[in-house]
Amino acid sequence: MTDPGPIALAQLNDIETAAFVAALGTVFEHAPWVANAAAAQRPFATVTELHRAMVAALAAAPADTVVEFLSRHPDLAGLAARAAPLTADSAREQAGAGFDDLGFEETARLANWNTRYRACFGFPFIICALRHGKDSIFAEFERRLTGDPEAERRAALDEIARISALRLTQRVTGPGIPPVHGEMSTHLLDAAIGKPAAWIPIELYAISSDGPPTLVTKTVSDVNGRTEAPLIAGRPVPNGGWELRFALGAYLAERGTAGFLETVPVRFTTSEPETHYHIPLLFTPWSYSTYRGS
Amino acid sequence: MTDPGPIALAQLNDIETAAFVAALGTVFEHAPWVANAAAAQRPFATVTELHRAMVAALAAAPADTVVEFLSRHPDLAGLAARAAPLTADSAREQAGAGFDDLGFEETARLANWNTRYRACFGFPFIICALRHGKDSIFAEFERRLTGDPEAERRAALDEIARISALRLTQRVTGPGIPPVHGEMSTHLLDAAIGKPAAWIPIELYAISSDGPPTLVTKTVSDVNGRTEAPLIAGRPVPNGGWELRFALGAYLAERGTAGFLETVPVRFTTSEPETHYHIPLLFTPWSYSTYRGS
Amino acid sequence: MTDPGPIALAQLNDIETAAFVAALGTVFEHAPWVANAAAAQRPFATVTELHRAMVAALAAAPADTVVEFLSRHPDLAGLAARAAPLTADSAREQAGAGFDDLGFEETARLANWNTRYRACFGFPFIICALRHGKDSIFAEFERRLTGDPEAERRAALDEIARISALRLTQRVTGPGIPPVHGEMSTHLLDAAIGKPAAWIPIELYAISSDGPPTLVTKTVSDVNGRTEAPLIAGRPVPNGGWELRFALGAYLAERGTAGFLETVPVRFTTSEPETHYHIPLLFTPWSYSTYRGS
Amino acid sequence: MTDPGPIALAQLNDIETAAFVAALGTVFEHAPWVANAAAAQRPFATVTELHRAMVAALAAAPADTVVEFLSRHPDLAGLAARAAPLTADSAREQAGAGFDDLGFEETARLANWNTRYRACFGFPFIICALRHGKDSIFAEFERRLTGDPEAERRAALDEIARISALRLTQRVTGPGIPPVHGEMSTHLLDAAIGKPAAWIPIELYAISSDGPPTLVTKTVSDVNGRTEAPLIAGRPVPNGGWELRFALGAYLAERGTAGFLETVPVRFTTSEPETHYHIPLLFTPWSYSTYRGS
Repeated sequence: MTDPGPIALAQLNDIETAAFVAALGTVFEHAPWVANAAAAQRPFATVTELHRAMVAALAAAPADTVVEFLSRHPDLAGLAARAAPLTADSAREQAGAGFDDLGFEETARLANWNTRYRACFGFPFIICALRHGKDSIFAEFERRLTGDPEAERRAALDEIARISALRLTQRVTGPGIPPVHGEMSTHLLDAAIGKPAAWIPIELYAISSDGPPTLVTKTVSDVNGRTEAPLIAGRPVPNGGWELRFALGAYLAERGTAGFLETVPVRFTTSEPETHYHIPLLFTPWSYSTYRGS
Repeated sequence: MTDPGPIALAQLNDIETAAFVAALGTVFEHAPWVANAAAAQRPFATVTELHRAMVAALAAAPADTVVEFLSRHPDLAGLAARAAPLTADSAREQAGAGFDDLGFEETARLANWNTRYRACFGFPFIICALRHGKDSIFAEFERRLTGDPEAERRAALDEIARISALRLTQRVTGPGIPPVHGEMSTHLLDAAIGKPAAWIPIELYAISSDGPPTLVTKTVSDVNGRTEAPLIAGRPVPNGGWELRFALGAYLAERGTAGFLETVPVRFTTSEPETHYHIPLLFTPWSYSTYRGS
Repeated sequence: MTDPGPIALAQLNDIETAAFVAALGTVFEHAPWVANAAAAQRPFATVTELHRAMVAALAAAPADTVVEFLSRHPDLAGLAARAAPLTADSAREQAGAGFDDLGFEETARLANWNTRYRACFGFPFIICALRHGKDSIFAEFERRLTGDPEAERRAALDEIARISALRLTQRVTGPGIPPVHGEMSTHLLDAAIGKPAAWIPIELYAISSDGPPTLVTKTVSDVNGRTEAPLIAGRPVPNGGWELRFALGAYLAERGTAGFLETVPVRFTTSEPETHYHIPLLFTPWSYSTYRGS
Repeated sequence: MTDPGPIALAQLNDIETAAFVAALGTVFEHAPWVANAAAAQRPFATVTELHRAMVAALAAAPADTVVEFLSRHPDLAGLAARAAPLTADSAREQAGAGFDDLGFEETARLANWNTRYRACFGFPFIICALRHGKDSIFAEFERRLTGDPEAERRAALDEIARISALRLTQRVTGPGIPPVHGEMSTHLLDAAIGKPAAWIPIELYAISSDGPPTLVTKTVSDVNGRTEAPLIAGRPVPNGGWELRFALGAYLAERGTAGFLETVPVRFTTSEPETHYHIPLLFTPWSYSTYRGS
């Protein structure tokens, strides 16, 4: 099946209910009835309004319908996930968090927690995986295992609101997109010559508490000392540890000033997925500084 | 045998020749005759003058005596080293460069190079190991394998002058010590409060081109933001890559400003073993800078 | 007479020659014949092409016409300037360089130099005043007084090319504007909280070798730590000394961190009028850094 | 009369009471009886103990003796001061605060305040002038004019304790000097080459709210990027505004990197007279940073 690509909000406001549900039925997992209920509220001036209407339709459903809806979400990775089919959206979103290469011990821990969580609350642990790195998801899972049922029901709905907002921004274009994306960017300035530093190789790694860093993206600075595209964009910045590596060696060698700095690692942690993390590097052959910019 | 400890230059100037040779005979490997020749030049006003006299005595020896002297130096680590006994000095000096845990492939390469070098030049590859990290020694070895005989003879004598100067500074106290030691130090300043940062755990790692970083020393900053002792002192700073790790996490957490910075790695390369590398870190919860200070 | 406002390049390409000359006749001082000659080359794809055609028309004129054209330019300020009428353009451009408040000694020096220059070269000293501060103009004048006639003729034509390009960008809109404008901007980041610093009063002063600093503009940072408009834009950045003053006192006092920094002055010199000078300030209550950014 | 120079604490412990009083009788203004009372407490192990004994002797005196003692202190500068003779100590200490060149308006204000203060409290306004700049003294004076009598009596005694501690450290050598001195120092590092910057002219100015900056000291950096002597030492750092000026122009010009930075001013305020203010400058031709170091 080919992806039909995003649809314009204006068009969604005009088409028949069946077509509307066909376009947005999977925004809420296995629950086309949410899109159906929202369709009656048209027209929407902004994508955010559309999203709010869908969230409200879910909230307005009878309590047992909501629990049944929650219970049909996939278990977070683990053994259970392999038995039950994931929707394409869920599979992609969970992969982003590093769940495609869990070790044996982690898989077992997750399966155990999944079982306990479901037993306690009647539905699986639900989290917007795109907003988290692996460490961060494990920490959240551990914390929420000891939550009370009402708090967990609300937490699950909050996470579903985030998941659905992200899915909506992929499927719908138009004004008033919900603020669900963050950004990570950098900028290289050679302070010894007062100019942007071009053609510096840059790598971004995700750091987890165990295991080696995972390469997320690699790029190179342009003549403005920036990268052609942000390091992360069009999605939340997952909570977690990061390491930027700026390979200054060849650049400095060309200028005859190599010797002290080679690859400069900058390690930091992010915890606000919907914001912009700008991490510039000002350097000379003998010094550098970095900061959370804006 | 217990180490008698260092002897004062003034005392060396006074004692009988036999005692002088007993004290300094091993400064030049298997060559007490060097000390013997220098003894006749006494008194020495400085340790540097004493060292120069020993170096001159070696240089004044007939060519074949010098080659024989060179050829009695141990092979650099490798298989050969295990067959022939190292002097206690050589063993300690080579250990510092990371030669106590070479892998199989490296050991084989070194044995091969040792054989080729000896065949070419008639004596083993000699280098002041305390001035080098593992990468740096391999690079020097590879470069010098293709040297011409006269250049290598001079290079070997230069390295022996360095080795003997270092040995002398351990055995003799007095004025005019040869400038054979370097230093590495750090300083932590919390720029958000304008004060030194105390009780920050600091680790220093040696970085090599292959294999994981090797912990060299660990310490903690004091109330002045400095360390009780320099990170490296009383010896040359080995040429090579280094990573300082400043664990700011707990410090920032205590002040309620954790979140962005946790462990700050600072990676740099040194290439002047006899100088002082001062690497301060100025930080706030959201930024830091570092530089080669003085 | 009311200013008719800028005219579109497309329209200039279409109108009659007389209207074209009416629109652009004063771009070259007292020389509508330059516009007349360029009119025949229409259409122009870019404003830069139009400018080149006008410069070429001037260069193609007979030598004595060019000298006569040069000689009709006003003397740079001074007593002579008051005797002969300045065109409105010349008056405004010279005011920018600080020539509206020369002291007695400076006025006398300028009059003397004007007389000598005219006697030597047959036309007045011509310079694109918008690209210079007062010190810079005096330095250029002194240097060029001792030039040779051919070099001065070329220097005068180069300056006229710059003056006319600036006048053209004010009168004509369209693609391919000549790169005659520079920019000065700033950005305030509070590194202690990792956020832009809002509502910081900022003053920009021009510094000259004698006399007190002259206030050029004052503004305040916005929530992004930037200023609503650049400090200098839509014109060249005059060569000379500058002092930015960032009044951090009230900002820090509100946060309970006043005491060490009050007003931070940043002094620098510019010498490339057509480029962008971005001068950010990263500060904490106890430190700051600044650099020529991009 | 020639200054006999400082006397050793050990000697003070040994000499006759009359000699002791001759040596220390002027430490408390016009009150040799304080020294006389302290003499009986000998021997003192530290200069600080000696000082405490003198302060205690004053505190133990009858209330009216104390008031009489306070009332014999000179008025702070002003007209009154010219009528009554200052002791040599008072004259020197008040000069340091800038009271040797007060303007007419300030002199009148001070005379007025002096009269009011004396009328309210029965003794003149007493302050340790070496700890303050002019602005700071005026601010303190204004604040204390509205104090209550008991608070002012205690404030006066506190200030006298400070004044006498400073006088004592000039007259007596020995262990346990009271911590009454501060320091101001700087350090210049050229981050573009990773080395200290030598031979940079440095000026230190005191800044007051009105009037131009006053040159306090000028010096030049040495090969270690430091100054031969601290900018301020052997006395408190007066509370107030300061501007350090680093003349980088010639240094950068020699290296072919002049153009952007010429003289770098660093402006800051101090408010802890007994501490060390270390204000380094790290610079490149295109950037610099400064901070309160340690």
